[in-house]
Amino acid sequence: MIVHSVIFTLKHPAGSSAEAKFLTDALVLTQIHGVQHFERLRQISPKNEFDFGFSMQFADAAAYQRYDEHPIHVEFVRDRWVPEVAKFLEIDYEAL
Amino acid sequence: MIVHSVIFTLKHPAGSSAEAKFLTDALVLTQIHGVQHFERLRQISPKNEFDFGFSMQFADAAAYQRYDEHPIHVEFVRDRWVPEVAKFLEIDYEAL
Repeated sequence: MIVHSVIFTLKHPAGSSAEAKFLTDALVLTQIHGVQHFERLRQISPKNEFDFGFSMQFADAAAYQRYDEHPIHVEFVRDRWVPEVAKFLEIDYEAL
Repeated sequence: MIVHSVIFTLKHPAGSSAEAKFLTDALVLTQIHGVQHFERLRQISPKNEFDFGFSMQFADAAAYQRYDEHPIHVEFVRDRWVPEVAKFLEIDYEAL
């Protein structure tokens, strides 16, 4: 099982309708087969510069790859992530 | 509920006994009252420079603060984390 997450900061002002729309529209990713336990999170540590997080689980690397290549994901990255996200860091976990 | 996590890289060589010992000894943190769902993780994304992660949950900010100030945590940070960890990033999540 792989936990894929990304911490990020949006270009939109905090509390703006554009921010809310981005966070709502990201739920489109849950339509991709293989995405489990999708969570939208607020990053609250003052020890890093990111405001939000998305987290999801995949059964295995093949499911992760299918997500990565899925048109819904590719279009979300192209049309929403790239233009609206100021900075981000991806983190992937497997159990030790 | 707060999910507290830290991604990190050890000074020890990959696969070394010192690495294994650090990851085992970190389980001492689970003795601290309020620490829930403690996980030791391997960070596998090539898109960041960290090798491992620890993740745990706290019921609220007060439980998190008690952990942070607990002698077991303070001593682990002083005696193991600072001398053995090369770099790290802390991340704290709340549900949106």
